[in-house]
Amino acid sequence: MAKTENSHIPMIGAEVFIEPGQSPEEIDIWFQQLQKNGMKITRIRMFESYMHKADGSWDFSLFDTAFRAGEKYDIKIYANLFPATDFTDVGGFKFPKSEANLGQISNYIQHLVPHFKQYASLYGWVPINEPGSGVLPEDEYSLKSFEDWKAREIKELYNSQGFTILDFRKEKFLLYYNTWFLSWLTQEIHLYDPGARIHVNNHAIFQHAAEYDFPQWRSFLSSLGGSAHASWHFGYFSRHKYAVAMSANSEILRSGAGPLPWLMTELQGGNNIYSAFNPLCPTPEEIAQWLWITIGSGSKGSIFWCLNPRRSGFEAGEWGMLDYLNEPSCRMRAASEVINVINEHADFFSEAKVAESGIHILYTRESLWIEQALQVKSDSTEPGRDIGGVMKSALAWFEAITEMGVSPGFREIGEFDFTRKDYTGEVIILAQQISIPSRYWTALEHFVERGGHLIAEGLTAYYDENAFALMGKDFPFQKLFGGLIKEFILKDRLFEIEVEGHTHIAHLWYGIIHPLTGRAIAVDGEEVLALRNTFGQGKVLWIPSLIGLGSRITDNYHSLVLLLNRELGHILDKQVFRFSKQQPGLLMKTLQNGKDYLSILINKSQESQDISIQGGENLKPILWYANKNGTVASSDQIQINREETLLIRWMSYSD
Amino acid sequence: MAKTENSHIPMIGAEVFIEPGQSPEEIDIWFQQLQKNGMKITRIRMFESYMHKADGSWDFSLFDTAFRAGEKYDIKIYANLFPATDFTDVGGFKFPKSEANLGQISNYIQHLVPHFKQYASLYGWVPINEPGSGVLPEDEYSLKSFEDWKAREIKELYNSQGFTILDFRKEKFLLYYNTWFLSWLTQEIHLYDPGARIHVNNHAIFQHAAEYDFPQWRSFLSSLGGSAHASWHFGYFSRHKYAVAMSANSEILRSGAGPLPWLMTELQGGNNIYSAFNPLCPTPEEIAQWLWITIGSGSKGSIFWCLNPRRSGFEAGEWGMLDYLNEPSCRMRAASEVINVINEHADFFSEAKVAESGIHILYTRESLWIEQALQVKSDSTEPGRDIGGVMKSALAWFEAITEMGVSPGFREIGEFDFTRKDYTGEVIILAQQISIPSRYWTALEHFVERGGHLIAEGLTAYYDENAFALMGKDFPFQKLFGGLIKEFILKDRLFEIEVEGHTHIAHLWYGIIHPLTGRAIAVDGEEVLALRNTFGQGKVLWIPSLIGLGSRITDNYHSLVLLLNRELGHILDKQVFRFSKQQPGLLMKTLQNGKDYLSILINKSQESQDISIQGGENLKPILWYANKNGTVASSDQIQINREETLLIRWMSYSD
Amino acid sequence: MAKTENSHIPMIGAEVFIEPGQSPEEIDIWFQQLQKNGMKITRIRMFESYMHKADGSWDFSLFDTAFRAGEKYDIKIYANLFPATDFTDVGGFKFPKSEANLGQISNYIQHLVPHFKQYASLYGWVPINEPGSGVLPEDEYSLKSFEDWKAREIKELYNSQGFTILDFRKEKFLLYYNTWFLSWLTQEIHLYDPGARIHVNNHAIFQHAAEYDFPQWRSFLSSLGGSAHASWHFGYFSRHKYAVAMSANSEILRSGAGPLPWLMTELQGGNNIYSAFNPLCPTPEEIAQWLWITIGSGSKGSIFWCLNPRRSGFEAGEWGMLDYLNEPSCRMRAASEVINVINEHADFFSEAKVAESGIHILYTRESLWIEQALQVKSDSTEPGRDIGGVMKSALAWFEAITEMGVSPGFREIGEFDFTRKDYTGEVIILAQQISIPSRYWTALEHFVERGGHLIAEGLTAYYDENAFALMGKDFPFQKLFGGLIKEFILKDRLFEIEVEGHTHIAHLWYGIIHPLTGRAIAVDGEEVLALRNTFGQGKVLWIPSLIGLGSRITDNYHSLVLLLNRELGHILDKQVFRFSKQQPGLLMKTLQNGKDYLSILINKSQESQDISIQGGENLKPILWYANKNGTVASSDQIQINREETLLIRWMSYSD
Repeated sequence: MAKTENSHIPMIGAEVFIEPGQSPEEIDIWFQQLQKNGMKITRIRMFESYMHKADGSWDFSLFDTAFRAGEKYDIKIYANLFPATDFTDVGGFKFPKSEANLGQISNYIQHLVPHFKQYASLYGWVPINEPGSGVLPEDEYSLKSFEDWKAREIKELYNSQGFTILDFRKEKFLLYYNTWFLSWLTQEIHLYDPGARIHVNNHAIFQHAAEYDFPQWRSFLSSLGGSAHASWHFGYFSRHKYAVAMSANSEILRSGAGPLPWLMTELQGGNNIYSAFNPLCPTPEEIAQWLWITIGSGSKGSIFWCLNPRRSGFEAGEWGMLDYLNEPSCRMRAASEVINVINEHADFFSEAKVAESGIHILYTRESLWIEQALQVKSDSTEPGRDIGGVMKSALAWFEAITEMGVSPGFREIGEFDFTRKDYTGEVIILAQQISIPSRYWTALEHFVERGGHLIAEGLTAYYDENAFALMGKDFPFQKLFGGLIKEFILKDRLFEIEVEGHTHIAHLWYGIIHPLTGRAIAVDGEEVLALRNTFGQGKVLWIPSLIGLGSRITDNYHSLVLLLNRELGHILDKQVFRFSKQQPGLLMKTLQNGKDYLSILINKSQESQDISIQGGENLKPILWYANKNGTVASSDQIQINREETLLIRWMSYSD
Repeated sequence: MAKTENSHIPMIGAEVFIEPGQSPEEIDIWFQQLQKNGMKITRIRMFESYMHKADGSWDFSLFDTAFRAGEKYDIKIYANLFPATDFTDVGGFKFPKSEANLGQISNYIQHLVPHFKQYASLYGWVPINEPGSGVLPEDEYSLKSFEDWKAREIKELYNSQGFTILDFRKEKFLLYYNTWFLSWLTQEIHLYDPGARIHVNNHAIFQHAAEYDFPQWRSFLSSLGGSAHASWHFGYFSRHKYAVAMSANSEILRSGAGPLPWLMTELQGGNNIYSAFNPLCPTPEEIAQWLWITIGSGSKGSIFWCLNPRRSGFEAGEWGMLDYLNEPSCRMRAASEVINVINEHADFFSEAKVAESGIHILYTRESLWIEQALQVKSDSTEPGRDIGGVMKSALAWFEAITEMGVSPGFREIGEFDFTRKDYTGEVIILAQQISIPSRYWTALEHFVERGGHLIAEGLTAYYDENAFALMGKDFPFQKLFGGLIKEFILKDRLFEIEVEGHTHIAHLWYGIIHPLTGRAIAVDGEEVLALRNTFGQGKVLWIPSLIGLGSRITDNYHSLVLLLNRELGHILDKQVFRFSKQQPGLLMKTLQNGKDYLSILINKSQESQDISIQGGENLKPILWYANKNGTVASSDQIQINREETLLIRWMSYSD
Repeated sequence: MAKTENSHIPMIGAEVFIEPGQSPEEIDIWFQQLQKNGMKITRIRMFESYMHKADGSWDFSLFDTAFRAGEKYDIKIYANLFPATDFTDVGGFKFPKSEANLGQISNYIQHLVPHFKQYASLYGWVPINEPGSGVLPEDEYSLKSFEDWKAREIKELYNSQGFTILDFRKEKFLLYYNTWFLSWLTQEIHLYDPGARIHVNNHAIFQHAAEYDFPQWRSFLSSLGGSAHASWHFGYFSRHKYAVAMSANSEILRSGAGPLPWLMTELQGGNNIYSAFNPLCPTPEEIAQWLWITIGSGSKGSIFWCLNPRRSGFEAGEWGMLDYLNEPSCRMRAASEVINVINEHADFFSEAKVAESGIHILYTRESLWIEQALQVKSDSTEPGRDIGGVMKSALAWFEAITEMGVSPGFREIGEFDFTRKDYTGEVIILAQQISIPSRYWTALEHFVERGGHLIAEGLTAYYDENAFALMGKDFPFQKLFGGLIKEFILKDRLFEIEVEGHTHIAHLWYGIIHPLTGRAIAVDGEEVLALRNTFGQGKVLWIPSLIGLGSRITDNYHSLVLLLNRELGHILDKQVFRFSKQQPGLLMKTLQNGKDYLSILINKSQESQDISIQGGENLKPILWYANKNGTVASSDQIQINREETLLIRWMSYSD
């Protein structure tokens, strides 16, 4: 077993990029700069290409210099495996290319690990940089592994009522294969460094989520990580939404990690020129926002990509936290100020946990698989039926709740604990989750039966896990939802739908309900468009239209927030803190250490805002951090400027 | 020979989709619903994959259930061959993949046909679903057939004046190959079911027209069909033009069928989600419009795709006329109302024919081939020189004439009868038909010589059939057109051109004419831009600029209608009925049964309209159908609401 | 050695397209038309396919007819090699496909050259039409040549400070390979026609510039040429900028030619329909502009593509200067008028040279290679980081200086003469030249040291030739530029930057400077954004932001012109002529014959303009040519209409 630790302050760091051509003096400066700026951790790509000589001998000297500098300046190092690959391979290996290549990787580990485990600066190992490739590679080893797996695989019992079904074995295998390879690498590492920390950073989570089986990974990981680069990974968001994107990304990782700690392994540290999809340079304010959001989402640390940029080829001179003169950039200084606050309140942060909201936005892997499988090549683009529709729908609800000052969880359905006895005060939101696999049908019933609250939106439960349409008289959710769907009808790109007297903007389709036990709450002529249903101790709200995506496209969550206020009164009342009213563009995260609370507020709106926080009425707000001159007089007198982050520690007036 | 019948009312139906997993009870309900809603016909895909077991044995039981239900509820069934193919192959086979595969298909027919011909419910066979693949497939059998064909093919005598020419043998072979395979399948079916009805549905007609040799098909078909799905096939049109698109599609089929009856084999019946290029759900009004347009274009029936949607994979739960509870949707009810009207007036509809307008919009297959062959990959897009320019130009004139309340024919030039002695009262429109094959040069002269009227527009006759430019002193149409082209000049994306005092909007190029016998009717400085010419007993109007496409791009046919009014006075006066003035967005089709007339009016404009119909002055209008409360007091007092369809039966006041 | 000549008037002509099917009479007419319209030269594609019979025999008769007609009408012919290729291969061969193909080409030359060298009408040979293919072809011969070259290639001494580097051997090989093949073809031609003139026309220069090694070509060429077709090659420009595009294209060729004469081998002569990327037909005014611009850039002639269009397949009936009746088009007549003016002043034009401005806009081949190599596939498009950003930045400065009435040089850095002793009065502009190869580092220092003036803009010198980032403490230009870059920061798509009190619009990034010896001239808070530095006898202006591209995107060069006025006072004062103030949309070229000067003015603005020319105060302007009724009273009373070209010959008042 690998070590896992939860009891330490979040460790902030930046990746030192090591490559031949660098001088020992320069490497020394980089570690010195990490220390000077309060950073405690780094990650290094252990390029086999720069160690393994043509004659088969190994020369670790370049990397030894770095590990010794780590010891000298007390910087912990995550060593990232990087078996030999082409210079133009920016991201590195994802899978073995052949049996021989698997042997080469094993041999590389056999030489690498025993050598570097000697260093006190070695903190742990990262077996792969950014696993997840989107598709099953066509190489010999992968295809053979797929064949072997198919031969082994036990036929599933559930067969979609006898109907012929699409084949999702490639997707399922890829899920398994990532897990298998990470596990194999961990075992190889542990052969030479038993119990060493193992950390893995997934990436492009909104696109690749369906490829990661986090619960399975927990068995060999010490901590889960992720890469969240705005330039590469936040294509579903505009720039002023990068903060909420970071929040959602963090929540997915927090859920994936489960009981394990998690870190944001890569955060964009600097300017990109030719690399990445969108060019940008983070502002110091964004650096602070991203750090506090990950911390506010319970991370035990963040590492910027990168401290010093590589010098040659792709990314040359890009992404750095140091400038070209090896001096701290304004971004580095911003990170350093955050670190100072953490250190100042180390007692609080070392044991702080996320104050759970009880709100769970779930996505299902199979929804993403099916959405992709059913794509038709076409010029027309409609967010709701293109790739991304499923994830963006879930994000819409996440964004709406964020504007309420509440931080919902965001997780794959398989990461939700359906075994509890009581779900009072918990809500699950299934927004446009087109596939609900059969293994969760009774689980969802149990959740509601035992007091849980369920919101089902859009085409949720349209398919089972095999792209078999569940619509019809045998709809498995009819008891739970309180009705059946008669038809889905495409109305328009955007159209109005009235629910309980409030107008929502919906996208593409609306569902017409045949009510059974449910109570109609939206009616158009003779058509029932939404239901409330009670089931056991719990309740269900069913709106089979894309009101989330409609809100997201029009960038207006007003109606959705009103709906959530009506619907989730009991759960909202249980929140320790939340905004007194909807605050578009604002974001609040709450950390808890025993009975002590810290609120992290970020203002991404276009203007300075005056905020009132419900829950803080009888508490004394202490400002721990404000980077744009914001002020706090009381819970209803909080002034936060554009792009600012505030940290408010709530004390009782008697303290 | 296969049976052909013209003397029956149009049969409306919907396709029953049969697949394993369905229960006999459900299959029974579907046929019952067909009957309840007045439907008389269905089509079923006879999936070999669901009959032919792994051990080589055949199990027809699933389909037997359907055929028995057909007998029970008196529903006629078109059995559609569907040899074994992948589950993800939505459209099915187009060509044999290999010699072995051809044998497998033969074997499949040998088992299938004798079994199902026993059922009284069997109406006929559809050898292929939607032949036409756009390109010659690269499989072994097709390539070998191509080589054999090239070896056999007799060299054409006409050789473009000795110039080197592009090779269009692939296009010509594909034309032949589709015909050959359909014929071969028919023979195979007739081996076991001699004289059985044979029906084939082409598809995406505006894109694939050049691939179909309808006159050749007539030798083995009982009736011609087509698939006209707005979501898949109407990409050249915006939604409010789908009615006129359906009209043009129908006219192409009517022409292709010649003396045979024709049916619209597939009409979109319901909502699509992930499938097809554009998402939409037909409104009940559109369902009625499409049915009446096909009927008004002389079809003997229409079958919706589909009654019950497939349950799994591509199209799962999509396209259905029944809702998920197997109840009729509003679309089904709309179709049922149409059926009631047909039944009520069965005597009229069973022998009704299209009242011919004498206006023939012709396209040439070679224009489509050449347009495609000469494309250069480019970011810039100009409708006139991109793929679609030829067809859209012809459609522009179709749309303009439609606004006059007249329904022109739309046909491939090879489908026009050039052997008649007198063409008085007939007009041919060649709009941007860039290639006029040499075999039609004297035919067109004969047409005009014998009293026909010709309108040549745009770059018509720029090329011969081999992409050889006909421009020059030896221009073969100089006598007919009354002049020669000096130059084509690109002026602008859109520009004005004045013809007889009226301003037209043209697109891209204008032609400068060197007049011979023709009379200039458009002059710009010293440049002659249009001619009228008389030739024998007939006349020619030649406007070598793209005024059709210019009108279509600006969505304004005002000038074109004025021109047609001036030009075609004699032909317009011969129309039984037409609008008293231009009616943008309206459409009128006229059916004739002996001396009895029926007008079908559809309002696709944004507002309710008051219509006056020329030709009905002394007739008593009887309203047979109005689905939005439209009214008719007299021929000049017709009120038709948005999206409405009206049927007006014209009676003499003495009746 | 091939013949070279500089002492003749510019020869204007048009390409006669010869193909089977044409009659001797028609060929005769074409040459007659050339003569009638004053044209003296043509080019003919010597299609092997139309000479080399299936039985191996050769039949030159079709082309003999043309060469005899050339003799008859005194038209000189460039014979363009065109070895056998497919009919659809519009541009012709670029490289041998195989060893056997190389042998076939040699055999073709062996038959072709001895036969046609007998004609007095033969002027010279064009070994390849439009060399330059963008990428190394994947055929057998090219790949083998690449391997041989790699084996031969001596490792470069400069190794980017020991860092791993990207592999640009394909790009380097392609540069070599084009040169080698042209040289080989020349040798083959000279075997049978020793000393014959050799001419080559590159094409798409703004895209393919990095593929051409003009200085190496000089060893076997008699003259350099180019194809500059607006429809195919001017995609970086909108139509009203085609004149300045032609000017820049011409300057690149003039620089490439060095001491050799140059011709514009292909100019678009007529309308295109399906061929080329953008459809257009040149106006007579554009024909005149293009001719005078090339002449004003020192060309010894221009040949239009084409006199008579090919008749069949791609380009059939397109591009011609004659109309379809073989009569001169208005474009031909415009060219003829230009020829008359040249003939009238033959004494001046035969020895006229470009009046050098001393302003040199340089691009580096490696900047283009690296820009391409570092592209990431992405939907987002930013001109500054997409392909074209390097070239468009250089063009921005070219366009700005053009508005000053000055004609800068435009050349690859390797074409600049760095060996001189004194560069007083010379300025080099490096705009967004991201790569400065190490072999030019000291050369640039010498240039400035010896009195040269350097402007470095954008990310110039970001990389060395291996895509190694030069940013850092060891920045090789720190002494020359007077500082180092601390960071490049992406600010916005467009943003303001103030330099010496004037606001510029910059694109994407701004560079923050750490000044050493330089004097800050743009400061934002504590950040230094631009420097002036003196180095030896010269000066450097360094603005590491994309103010050129920012100006080009917003189509406003006002601030850039102001900056150039301040910066280049001494150089501007040395200009013989220039506009008294900025003239957006206008262009002036100056030719010099000894002490005699001719100014060519073109007005591409939307309105008639009144112009004042500095330098002509004491000179008498004589109007040699004005094609839209422009007038000249004195140097400050010049009236030029829209689209007009004026030729002003400056005489002393005492003449």
